[in-house]
Amino acid sequence: MENSNSSIEGNNLRVRKLELSDKSKGFLELLRQLTVCDSVSDKEFEDRFKEISMYGDDHVICVIEDEISGKIIASGSVFIEKKFIRKCGKVGHIEDVVVDAGSRGMQLGKKIVGFLADHARSMGCYKVILDCSDENKVFYEKCGFKKKEIQM
Amino acid sequence: MENSNSSIEGNNLRVRKLELSDKSKGFLELLRQLTVCDSVSDKEFEDRFKEISMYGDDHVICVIEDEISGKIIASGSVFIEKKFIRKCGKVGHIEDVVVDAGSRGMQLGKKIVGFLADHARSMGCYKVILDCSDENKVFYEKCGFKKKEIQM
Repeated sequence: MENSNSSIEGNNLRVRKLELSDKSKGFLELLRQLTVCDSVSDKEFEDRFKEISMYGDDHVICVIEDEISGKIIASGSVFIEKKFIRKCGKVGHIEDVVVDAGSRGMQLGKKIVGFLADHARSMGCYKVILDCSDENKVFYEKCGFKKKEIQM
Repeated sequence: MENSNSSIEGNNLRVRKLELSDKSKGFLELLRQLTVCDSVSDKEFEDRFKEISMYGDDHVICVIEDEISGKIIASGSVFIEKKFIRKCGKVGHIEDVVVDAGSRGMQLGKKIVGFLADHARSMGCYKVILDCSDENKVFYEKCGFKKKEIQM
């Protein structure tokens, strides 16, 4: 598994787990580039942060911080689903992968997906899945994924 | 929300949450009609049952028991993902829906999906999603779902 707190070689980008203080580093503004993401109060953010943290390694949100600007410029999450099929197997579900529009072309999306997939595999998942639009299919193929089913 | 322990009118089929004793009622044999589902020991089954139960209403497995044969003839699961997008919204993920080959044509799949979707909505989910094969698309359309993305 990838180091959970690593710098990308040769620059000031740090890949790490989400921290409570990331609300003030533009985390919600980044998610807004993905979909509707209304502002929430500090209390609402903290409550949700704690709810997700309660799942420990079963629900991890990964971010990339630009240490020069102090901004979160990429993010994604993975949660581990426990099943009875496949000898009580586990599946990793990757969700909400987004890279800041001004930081594209630096392979940050691939870095995020790699971090999340590595985490899922380290948790013993027999597969890692995600849903994406047709436009993003090529990106995920470059990350090693293959089209399987349809999402409804 | 649908009653969590209800009989289907006019017959002996009971819709309810998974119980530990369902291992001896053919629950794993039913899942084997869906995909690879190797046998597990009672201990392994109990451990996984407890792990999932720890999530409470955030991960629910629903079954239909035929009270005459004492067999589990349909099943499906839903887990509730907590997000930051959509004002700290939640999404319900439906997984592993299966109906026993000998009990098809009785709308049991629809019953299972309805139970799970109702549960997700009662938990405040802004959407409920699932992945399926092209062959099952028509079934889920009848359940009110629409094709959205692709699963990889």
